[in-house]
Amino acid sequence: MSGPLCFEDFAVGRVFDCGTYALTKEDVFEFASEFDPQPHHLDEDAAKASMLKGLSASGWHVCAIAMRMLADGVILKAKGLGGVGAPEGRWMKPARPGETLRMEAEVIDAKPSGSKPFGLVTFECRMFDSHEQIAMISMTPIIGKRA
Amino acid sequence: MSGPLCFEDFAVGRVFDCGTYALTKEDVFEFASEFDPQPHHLDEDAAKASMLKGLSASGWHVCAIAMRMLADGVILKAKGLGGVGAPEGRWMKPARPGETLRMEAEVIDAKPSGSKPFGLVTFECRMFDSHEQIAMISMTPIIGKRA
Repeated sequence: MSGPLCFEDFAVGRVFDCGTYALTKEDVFEFASEFDPQPHHLDEDAAKASMLKGLSASGWHVCAIAMRMLADGVILKAKGLGGVGAPEGRWMKPARPGETLRMEAEVIDAKPSGSKPFGLVTFECRMFDSHEQIAMISMTPIIGKRA
Repeated sequence: MSGPLCFEDFAVGRVFDCGTYALTKEDVFEFASEFDPQPHHLDEDAAKASMLKGLSASGWHVCAIAMRMLADGVILKAKGLGGVGAPEGRWMKPARPGETLRMEAEVIDAKPSGSKPFGLVTFECRMFDSHEQIAMISMTPIIGKRA
């Protein structure tokens, strides 16, 4: 395919590979110390004693990583896409340091505007852990320009 | 009040002040360059030409800031609270660099477990911009230990 992606490229069912992200312990600590300083994201002993039974990334860190992967895999390759106001996610498994996360984004809805050269595209972003188990699912609506 | 907050302290309707957060341009660039490298979060001219008509923080940055404010205002003051798997948010206005954001968290639901010494507490977190307009609303379910 040549040129940037347009609304017309986002057929329902199409799956975009958003690559991988190697999550390190330093990443987990750095994000958590700034944005989510709960002991189970910052301290290995506290994490072992917690419900999650070990160190894991803040759920918001996982969302931020998903945003980066969607940007790299779809948004920055497309014409005039931008997010529109309704993040929604579900954390299925903790994302552990040392794992390489993988994400795919499937178009689950695509509605052209009746009057404007845009369309609303909703992606289901599925992030998998190193064991190919789903770590997070999020729904991300985005506005795409028509060709 | 003395001692950490318990489930019993989270009466529906109670509002917790989660303080303020001064958002700088450097903060906006730093988060966006790592997690949301769309031009309207990284480049002032591109931002002016965008739908948001000026530089603003990534929505995920705003979510992460809300997490930090909820941690400082509620979670780290409470006994054994922790988030549980279903973030949901709505961005109402862009958060601009130079603004001081303010957040309050209202208990909108509190359900004790029938059999365990825990309860599920849902907070509606309302973040306001410098003009006291709502920038973001999120729903955050949390598990709280009973007294």
